[in-house]
Amino acid sequence: MEMLNDEYYMRLALQLAEKAIGQTGINPVVGCVIVKEGRIVGLGAHLQRGSHHAEVHALLMAGKEAEGATAYVTLEPCSHFGRTPPCADRLIAEKVGRVVVACTDPNPQVAGTGVERLRSHGIRVDVGVLEREARALNEMFNKFIVSGLPFVTLKSATTLDGKIAAKTGDSKWISGESSRARVHMLRHRHQAIMVGVDTVIADDPLLTARLELEAIQPVRLVVDSKLRIPLESRLVKDTSAKTIVLTTNQASIEQMLRLNALGVEVIKCSDGPQVDLRKAMAILTEREIGSILLEGGGKLNGAMLSAGLVDKVVLFLAPKIVGGAGAPGAFVLDGFERMADAIALERIDIERVGDDCCITGYPSPGRRQEACSPES
Amino acid sequence: MEMLNDEYYMRLALQLAEKAIGQTGINPVVGCVIVKEGRIVGLGAHLQRGSHHAEVHALLMAGKEAEGATAYVTLEPCSHFGRTPPCADRLIAEKVGRVVVACTDPNPQVAGTGVERLRSHGIRVDVGVLEREARALNEMFNKFIVSGLPFVTLKSATTLDGKIAAKTGDSKWISGESSRARVHMLRHRHQAIMVGVDTVIADDPLLTARLELEAIQPVRLVVDSKLRIPLESRLVKDTSAKTIVLTTNQASIEQMLRLNALGVEVIKCSDGPQVDLRKAMAILTEREIGSILLEGGGKLNGAMLSAGLVDKVVLFLAPKIVGGAGAPGAFVLDGFERMADAIALERIDIERVGDDCCITGYPSPGRRQEACSPES
Repeated sequence: MEMLNDEYYMRLALQLAEKAIGQTGINPVVGCVIVKEGRIVGLGAHLQRGSHHAEVHALLMAGKEAEGATAYVTLEPCSHFGRTPPCADRLIAEKVGRVVVACTDPNPQVAGTGVERLRSHGIRVDVGVLEREARALNEMFNKFIVSGLPFVTLKSATTLDGKIAAKTGDSKWISGESSRARVHMLRHRHQAIMVGVDTVIADDPLLTARLELEAIQPVRLVVDSKLRIPLESRLVKDTSAKTIVLTTNQASIEQMLRLNALGVEVIKCSDGPQVDLRKAMAILTEREIGSILLEGGGKLNGAMLSAGLVDKVVLFLAPKIVGGAGAPGAFVLDGFERMADAIALERIDIERVGDDCCITGYPSPGRRQEACSPES
Repeated sequence: MEMLNDEYYMRLALQLAEKAIGQTGINPVVGCVIVKEGRIVGLGAHLQRGSHHAEVHALLMAGKEAEGATAYVTLEPCSHFGRTPPCADRLIAEKVGRVVVACTDPNPQVAGTGVERLRSHGIRVDVGVLEREARALNEMFNKFIVSGLPFVTLKSATTLDGKIAAKTGDSKWISGESSRARVHMLRHRHQAIMVGVDTVIADDPLLTARLELEAIQPVRLVVDSKLRIPLESRLVKDTSAKTIVLTTNQASIEQMLRLNALGVEVIKCSDGPQVDLRKAMAILTEREIGSILLEGGGKLNGAMLSAGLVDKVVLFLAPKIVGGAGAPGAFVLDGFERMADAIALERIDIERVGDDCCITGYPSPGRRQEACSPES
């Protein structure tokens, strides 16, 4: 049984935040728990960009009880006016007695300013309770806010010999039911899903999040330099989620207009013959897309990896061997000459999912390539 | 803390047996613990083919204490004269009071006869204590005794994209130190290591078991249809382990004589142009090789899998992506047309080894191919 201490309440605040992953857009997830005289008096989480921050929800619930209480917040309260007034000021106004913060703001330009503001008003502030867990919760937001580029999670499912389909192209099914359910959960938790047009042509995927309960439907992004996406593909016809096609200036205006007429947005991301992936990421940032689930195929996965644009890799390995020299793999790369130069993943996590193995890791920053590889 | 019951002593008997894996040749590993009046009075394990069975060692230690005692044996005591007299008779002669058996003999023709013999002499026999664990311990022996073919463990180490080397052939190192140490342990526990001649030419491996302490050196088998093995290769020059080359009738007599002169045995396993792998397995059985660690390369792995001769797969996956369409994979197979037809592994075990992932499984018997694919 857990003991009553700062971690006891902070863990609940983290759980409140964790469940909201996917619904705060480019905002972080944050949880808040307010405690007074041994009782929880306020609970809050940031639920939607533009609406209340976690602290405000919790303070509203606490009402007058907030005075002299302790507030547990998973992320440093803000001290600046954004879409909402600063939470630090609100905590001060409500006369909270103590604030416990899991981690400071990831933005180095404002980190610590919220804590300072509280302290300058005589509020005791303790920082660092369950810090690692809190930082991990917002790994997507942290990357986005610091770099100004979306956090990209590359997800793939392969056989033990690294294939994403048989030599005929048949790919149903590689991974088991539990792994496939995980993928839908990953979709729910990212703002966009990205595939190459070859995948659309080969598999005609729907790319929606299909779960036991109604899920958030991320934007569907198709990298398609020549606007080859079929007008009758499900990504075009299905309107349960928005579809954006990333293309080049060389794309046909007629095809673009046809797609627009069907509700599909087309964005030009390059003057050259192929989509400039880095530029595409910058444009998506302007559209407030801060997290992308990259679902291949192999060419796009390889190009994104080579361009250093992949932040995380989630690989489901199914315990089968399908063979075939021409059967497609998950990563089409020119390839390194030396094994020591391979793209290494760090902070590895290995989990069994049904009979599949889920390996998660982060491409080593030192090994990311800066060259921008295009997708045809 | 463990409670005092039949499993308490049987677990020790299993531990005695387990440590002897690799040193009993084509014999099973067996452990025995004799207990009287709450005290262990005898301990034994089968340590070497042709020498005492586990029960005899334990009975010798127990001496007169054996009378009326309980004997815990991981495998049903034998009731027939082999290289040693039947252990059931010895237990009867020593007037043991009760025998607890983990599992019956895997050979259906003799299973139960040892138990019957004991019971017919009024000894109480209980069967099935930690049975699953005991059967797993002798998975290699069980296959060998029932099928008359060696148990083959296919071991490979690949990147996440299924490569066993970069496109240049560079393969140092794929897996981490802990995984490589595991491989040496696997060598210690198999009677032979098998590779294709292409691997010898490319990597010039030593294929010995190199561990912290002195290990058993398995026989090194090279599948080499045209006797291309270089006379200066380490497998030929190094005499710390025996090397056998499996070839065809079409091999050059001169080259064979040269190899013989250097201490390398050459066995013809086919009249055709390529080694008949199934025939090779039968010949190795006659040589009392009951377990083989198959260490590739991809062509031989694929041929052995296609021939249905692989019993277990142990795959170390290193968290890196090396790329390269021409970089070699672990399994060279024509490949299946449908994902549903892929060679599926059953009874999956997933373990983290350092930063690598070790996936173990058994090719589904229904999916094993009967065709015998050769290696060039």
